[in-house]
Amino acid sequence: MNNCTKIKVGVLGATGTVGQRFIQLLENHQHFKVAVLGASANSKDKIYKDAVHWLLATPIPSDIANMKVHACDDIEAFNDCLIIFSALDASVATNLEKTFRIKGKAVFSNAKSHRYDSDVPIVVSSVNSDHIRCVQDQKKMYQGGFIVTNPNCSTTGVVVALKPIVATFGIKEVIVFTMQSVSGAGYPGVPSLDILGNVIPYIGEEEEKIEIETKKILGELSSSDGEQPSSSLKFNDHPMFVSAHTNRVPVSEGHTICLSIKLGREATVEEVSNVLKGYHKLTPPENCKLLISEPPLHVIDYPQTPNRPQPKLDLERGRGLTVTVGRIRGGSYQGGGSFDIRLTLLVHNTVLGAAGSSIQNAETCFKFGYIQ
Amino acid sequence: MNNCTKIKVGVLGATGTVGQRFIQLLENHQHFKVAVLGASANSKDKIYKDAVHWLLATPIPSDIANMKVHACDDIEAFNDCLIIFSALDASVATNLEKTFRIKGKAVFSNAKSHRYDSDVPIVVSSVNSDHIRCVQDQKKMYQGGFIVTNPNCSTTGVVVALKPIVATFGIKEVIVFTMQSVSGAGYPGVPSLDILGNVIPYIGEEEEKIEIETKKILGELSSSDGEQPSSSLKFNDHPMFVSAHTNRVPVSEGHTICLSIKLGREATVEEVSNVLKGYHKLTPPENCKLLISEPPLHVIDYPQTPNRPQPKLDLERGRGLTVTVGRIRGGSYQGGGSFDIRLTLLVHNTVLGAAGSSIQNAETCFKFGYIQ
Amino acid sequence: MNNCTKIKVGVLGATGTVGQRFIQLLENHQHFKVAVLGASANSKDKIYKDAVHWLLATPIPSDIANMKVHACDDIEAFNDCLIIFSALDASVATNLEKTFRIKGKAVFSNAKSHRYDSDVPIVVSSVNSDHIRCVQDQKKMYQGGFIVTNPNCSTTGVVVALKPIVATFGIKEVIVFTMQSVSGAGYPGVPSLDILGNVIPYIGEEEEKIEIETKKILGELSSSDGEQPSSSLKFNDHPMFVSAHTNRVPVSEGHTICLSIKLGREATVEEVSNVLKGYHKLTPPENCKLLISEPPLHVIDYPQTPNRPQPKLDLERGRGLTVTVGRIRGGSYQGGGSFDIRLTLLVHNTVLGAAGSSIQNAETCFKFGYIQ
Amino acid sequence: MNNCTKIKVGVLGATGTVGQRFIQLLENHQHFKVAVLGASANSKDKIYKDAVHWLLATPIPSDIANMKVHACDDIEAFNDCLIIFSALDASVATNLEKTFRIKGKAVFSNAKSHRYDSDVPIVVSSVNSDHIRCVQDQKKMYQGGFIVTNPNCSTTGVVVALKPIVATFGIKEVIVFTMQSVSGAGYPGVPSLDILGNVIPYIGEEEEKIEIETKKILGELSSSDGEQPSSSLKFNDHPMFVSAHTNRVPVSEGHTICLSIKLGREATVEEVSNVLKGYHKLTPPENCKLLISEPPLHVIDYPQTPNRPQPKLDLERGRGLTVTVGRIRGGSYQGGGSFDIRLTLLVHNTVLGAAGSSIQNAETCFKFGYIQ
Repeated sequence: MNNCTKIKVGVLGATGTVGQRFIQLLENHQHFKVAVLGASANSKDKIYKDAVHWLLATPIPSDIANMKVHACDDIEAFNDCLIIFSALDASVATNLEKTFRIKGKAVFSNAKSHRYDSDVPIVVSSVNSDHIRCVQDQKKMYQGGFIVTNPNCSTTGVVVALKPIVATFGIKEVIVFTMQSVSGAGYPGVPSLDILGNVIPYIGEEEEKIEIETKKILGELSSSDGEQPSSSLKFNDHPMFVSAHTNRVPVSEGHTICLSIKLGREATVEEVSNVLKGYHKLTPPENCKLLISEPPLHVIDYPQTPNRPQPKLDLERGRGLTVTVGRIRGGSYQGGGSFDIRLTLLVHNTVLGAAGSSIQNAETCFKFGYIQ
Repeated sequence: MNNCTKIKVGVLGATGTVGQRFIQLLENHQHFKVAVLGASANSKDKIYKDAVHWLLATPIPSDIANMKVHACDDIEAFNDCLIIFSALDASVATNLEKTFRIKGKAVFSNAKSHRYDSDVPIVVSSVNSDHIRCVQDQKKMYQGGFIVTNPNCSTTGVVVALKPIVATFGIKEVIVFTMQSVSGAGYPGVPSLDILGNVIPYIGEEEEKIEIETKKILGELSSSDGEQPSSSLKFNDHPMFVSAHTNRVPVSEGHTICLSIKLGREATVEEVSNVLKGYHKLTPPENCKLLISEPPLHVIDYPQTPNRPQPKLDLERGRGLTVTVGRIRGGSYQGGGSFDIRLTLLVHNTVLGAAGSSIQNAETCFKFGYIQ
Repeated sequence: MNNCTKIKVGVLGATGTVGQRFIQLLENHQHFKVAVLGASANSKDKIYKDAVHWLLATPIPSDIANMKVHACDDIEAFNDCLIIFSALDASVATNLEKTFRIKGKAVFSNAKSHRYDSDVPIVVSSVNSDHIRCVQDQKKMYQGGFIVTNPNCSTTGVVVALKPIVATFGIKEVIVFTMQSVSGAGYPGVPSLDILGNVIPYIGEEEEKIEIETKKILGELSSSDGEQPSSSLKFNDHPMFVSAHTNRVPVSEGHTICLSIKLGREATVEEVSNVLKGYHKLTPPENCKLLISEPPLHVIDYPQTPNRPQPKLDLERGRGLTVTVGRIRGGSYQGGGSFDIRLTLLVHNTVLGAAGSSIQNAETCFKFGYIQ
Repeated sequence: MNNCTKIKVGVLGATGTVGQRFIQLLENHQHFKVAVLGASANSKDKIYKDAVHWLLATPIPSDIANMKVHACDDIEAFNDCLIIFSALDASVATNLEKTFRIKGKAVFSNAKSHRYDSDVPIVVSSVNSDHIRCVQDQKKMYQGGFIVTNPNCSTTGVVVALKPIVATFGIKEVIVFTMQSVSGAGYPGVPSLDILGNVIPYIGEEEEKIEIETKKILGELSSSDGEQPSSSLKFNDHPMFVSAHTNRVPVSEGHTICLSIKLGREATVEEVSNVLKGYHKLTPPENCKLLISEPPLHVIDYPQTPNRPQPKLDLERGRGLTVTVGRIRGGSYQGGGSFDIRLTLLVHNTVLGAAGSSIQNAETCFKFGYIQ
């Protein structure tokens, strides 16, 4: 597919940290081409390289550097785009994303605004891409447009690690304990005076998001009773209990997360390890093959040394699309207690945990034929 | 008490990070005077300021700087000391501490070597100073000598925060998640290449220590059946389940720890908060008044802002002898699950979590008349 | 002097990082009492503890925590204050400080706004407190009011270290290389994404400030020819050449600065070392005795170990009022080149480099009788 | 060239940080194949992946992971290698490198041991690859063997930035001020307790190395008078004065270095900028084309934004083989003083500053026909 026949996409919030990741990851994409950049009013009409405080170690793609930036609410400017990627703050995402949907656009959003809508899915490609079929209902309602969200960055890592476990053994309860990097807070984000040599044991609304989103993603999308005219599909949360402790640590990129898991049925540590070890070797399921142009080798990596995963050493596995797990062990050393399994995972919070999952979701929709 | 009548103490491992804290905290102590310094053979006969890589922001006390360093196994050198503080590595502590005990010394140790001995207590002054009475049995056995240990640094913070809760409501289970500073690993300790901008989700043996020590400290010291001639007192572990995840973060000093707690009986978040809020206002119990010359105002501080405690802001509360708690909330936002309470705590790992607790234990023994 | 008879002072910019230092350092001051707090309009009428994002490890002084905050331009609110300490941004300081001066106030400012005015001195107490006498000219012009500034934080450290050298040997040229902490940029200041594990080799206007201010402070204040009616005293810059490279490093507090110095006359490294070694032992000159209630022991410390000064170990010397120097050596190892001496210094940028010097200047004026 | 016909190389010190870089950079090299791994005696006979504490974000090359490690002094083990790359500590490098030379090997060394030998060059490929011709003299002396060193990591960056300037304008004097990352100190290297949130203003022998090596590299290699039978070529140091201040900062990788330069003849800032701007566009000179399989685009990059270069953003330019310069400006803002130009540069200390330059030197020798 040459540049002329690629699908044109717009990026909302293109100058922010997640917006920058969209632009970086979409460079040379097989099917999509960034055609319109949207940002806040004060970036309007600037060229991109002047409007952005570029924070990535790779340079701004040369075809993007000199593109003009539009205001995000200049809806007409995005007319030629079939796909809208949203890296907006929730405060403005709520209405803008709805506007683009009613204009018939396929909106893939990192914002939390519509995650909990009854007709909008929260999707991580390797976990619940079957939930994407609910966009058919949206398309009927909104003139062909729809919104697909991806979860909060921590939740993304959690659900990837839990997926093979819940599928094989079931899960009754999970305690999530995060050590999150500062890039998760955007830019300027966390002031250096707050975090250099420090830990901040609080991230606003983060714990609530993890608890809610994990259950929706790992839940079922089922036919409703058909009485509601506007929707024939319904999300049923997974009944597991989820509880989270979230913390900010002085790391630039990569969220490290510890889990304590109560399984749905008895299983040994070895059995659980084998399921996670085996998982990374699987061919990704049919519907998540299109992983940002070329698939990562593994959905999950499991380096079997006791002190892994680490952000410094494991962040770039699978170009940031792989979740690394480690330290799979029993619930306690002396036995007993509520939990069967402990493990640690690492997720690249701005790649798989943000822009990367949005793009994977667009790829899935493209493959399913939801975007024409 | 002037310098002449103070009790002479020896410090083993005086050049290490914990040894330095002993020397710093004992400067101008009301009852104790550092009289002999012990270190490894290659520091032998050097003067202290040349043997030590001093890492504290306060200067080496002037009366210590030019003292000669002895080899730790030069037992005779410590003849005049009634008290031995041990900041030794476990590898050498096991035998050396026993040797000093059999010489009739009161040994207060940070090493793990004897923590799990059936006749040695693990004591945090504000938590279980009643366990100290078991030294009477040791004194009979070892010609007046005895060993009192203090727990691993993380455990110290955990048991201080749990004490008022277990005393009021009981505790069935606790999950411990730590974010530990590099000073806990001594010097040279953690290489900077491993930890700058990174998290290491593994600390050797740390999780096991937390699980075992918490139960011993919060357990009971009771009369045994009297059949054993050598011991009339026996430690009964608290029956709670304890499970830990331990992590190293790029912080210099101060361990931040999240807890999920299942109570022994039903209680509201408010009731638990009130017990912790109230606790810090208590006069310290009779037997822990002698807190390094002058008592800290609070055993526990509870700043009621949502983003606390933080190492940067709360480490020095009570001169490092106070544990700061925060974020007391329910077990999950949506209800249900195994736990009733979540909270975060901060402990100064080299003050209260190491040398400080050893000194407080010596003060308690001094007050009880176990040291003459 | 009890609280009733202390001089009332107002603090402008009281919620910022330098404002917080003023409040911390003035707690229990012998002669001054913080009576009015000024901040920006959106803090107006809040109580201080709610308006401030307190960043210091010591708690907010209890008598300040519940004081009402006034808008800085509510000039009447400061009527009872003889002294105004200004921690304002230059953008608002320019006019506000003039307004307070014309109201007869003694204004001590950290802002750069008036540093280069021909009738305003830039003063570091131990370096050029004789320059303060120029306030007599201001007092005549402005109804008893005057402005005294202290220099940029890096310059403060530089002039303290250069003072004994220039006084003894003269200085022809100095090259200044800084490694500055993030607290110098205020709050929120430097985003953590920019500085974690990174160096930023640029600080806006900082190099220019160092070059200009060093020459003014080390210059002479002399009688002018008397033809200007408004002023009888005139600043003559020191003729030395000054050139600076300024850099931001991931350190919270404390600026580390390397100097290459060309002396005015030949001298050995030993002679220069002796002058700096000797300097710290001097009784501070008569007119800088009042160093924030009690004098620091040393204006300059010179720990003679090769790897000092370091922010972590030397920052708190003299309660942040002492400059630490180290590594005094020749201009190059092979000889030759433009410079005679290299050395490294450390200055506490928010204590001596900001609020501390302002307070010392107020103390000097108080002692000289310029404040009644 | 397939694997069978590639030149076999040995790596001494293969488990250290520089050794790891050799192995990483030589993976898939066009002409060289790592055939033998050498390390200290306690790694002997282990397989590589068990002997190494791998610190790079890319995995151990699969063909290396299971190779057996030899003791470095097991000379026979390296018999089949034409090339020896040395990442040894100077303490052992001195004799071992001589031994391999006398065995006829082409030794490319990061160690300082032989840098100052009168018949051994210090070479950075893009700067002074003409110095390599002196190996002909060594080959005559040592049965075909020779040693080529590359400079200290900081010096490497300095000479690359100075080369176009000295070639065009001449240089009389340069002041070097470094902010060096911890990877320069190897592993375990700098303890985290020493550097977290800190600056260490001293690196042993580093300043001397910069002063001496810069002058040798930028000097001339000329015919001597021919009277010495063992050598027909002689190094003449460049007569510029060099003076250095070296500092360690909490950065993992990448040395940031400020320079003050006195030119040999008058030139404007614009002229100097143009020479540096132009330089990076040049085709690398004929004799340094073989830059680790494929040349980097630029020897020097000059991003013209005021706050660059930065380790975080510019380290990976040219795969770590490009030096980034920035902030080219006059010697001072007010004019006057000894220096004409100030600038800042960044060098990847373990790629171009260590293993990368060694490999480029081997490539140059290979191209020149010195290795058969």
